[in-house]
Amino acid sequence: MTFDEIVCARRSVRDYDPGRPVSEEDIRALFEAARLAPSACNSQTWRFIAVTGRERIEALCDHAMRPVVRNKWLRDAPLIIAGCSQLDIVANRVGAAVTGIEYYQIDLGIAMEHIVLKATELGLGTCWIGWFNEDETRRILAIPRRVRVSALLAVGYPREPLPDARPRKSLDAICFADTWGRPFAPAPPDGP
Amino acid sequence: MTFDEIVCARRSVRDYDPGRPVSEEDIRALFEAARLAPSACNSQTWRFIAVTGRERIEALCDHAMRPVVRNKWLRDAPLIIAGCSQLDIVANRVGAAVTGIEYYQIDLGIAMEHIVLKATELGLGTCWIGWFNEDETRRILAIPRRVRVSALLAVGYPREPLPDARPRKSLDAICFADTWGRPFAPAPPDGP
Repeated sequence: MTFDEIVCARRSVRDYDPGRPVSEEDIRALFEAARLAPSACNSQTWRFIAVTGRERIEALCDHAMRPVVRNKWLRDAPLIIAGCSQLDIVANRVGAAVTGIEYYQIDLGIAMEHIVLKATELGLGTCWIGWFNEDETRRILAIPRRVRVSALLAVGYPREPLPDARPRKSLDAICFADTWGRPFAPAPPDGP
Repeated sequence: MTFDEIVCARRSVRDYDPGRPVSEEDIRALFEAARLAPSACNSQTWRFIAVTGRERIEALCDHAMRPVVRNKWLRDAPLIIAGCSQLDIVANRVGAAVTGIEYYQIDLGIAMEHIVLKATELGLGTCWIGWFNEDETRRILAIPRRVRVSALLAVGYPREPLPDARPRKSLDAICFADTWGRPFAPAPPDGP
């Protein structure tokens, strides 16, 4: 698959085949894609936990989801990857205090999206989960208190049919040229 | 290029050929890759400004860099993309207040890395810049006060030779199985 094909094929999948586990070889390929991601000052703060044990996945579903969006479909996912960050003093304490940018969260987005795109190439579905209880997740996965957990990722083989692509803002609405609000590429004038 | 080849080929490039601009077609392809990225609640908070005007690039170099890491090489980049976020009430105010996760920064990481990977496929170099003055950037690019700017991205054709790959932690150091610290895939025992 080309990169464009991967990006176009990616969906947030909320319906997994519970009978098809993700192979250790594929999990390793996902992690290898993340490992090569760039990070602030090459600090590599990301840590990933591949949760495949049935009891632990059920514990996450029972205790680490939050009201309103409980993600009941998550129970069928054969793999949940917890996206953690072991904070770096320079980039994440000093740097963030000056700029207000949480570099470790941007870095987690970068590396975990490498996982998402690689998974898509492997025929796997994924779904980012950002609405979860961090303390409960730490307890269930024995994650130390100083480590942040900023995302969970469901991974597995999607059940048919795949969801349609979600609506997207137009390029004009999100991309500008040189200054804010200036059209990136104005449509050519009508006429010959 | 396969996805793995793109991920392996990516470097943070700090030496650009100032004589080779990035074509409008390529910039459009970069933005299209970002546009299809997933985001929290599909909120699509990211906004991108493609800065190609020489004066504005120099203004960013002169006024929007910060002490210690002034990124003098940035002056040669033919394109700087400002990664902005127009915050969403539900995901970025209510959600973040409950969880402490800055979803818009994770989302910016995701979408801007789509740009980075697409650029790599197009033979372009990139470099994430997280250490910059947001207020000055807003002033130079006429970005409204309520819009956050969390990253700048240098884009252009690299000058040879390409930098070596930076050192990376081993898979064992960053990836665990089921619980924190448990080896993802223990080495097979010695012997037959």
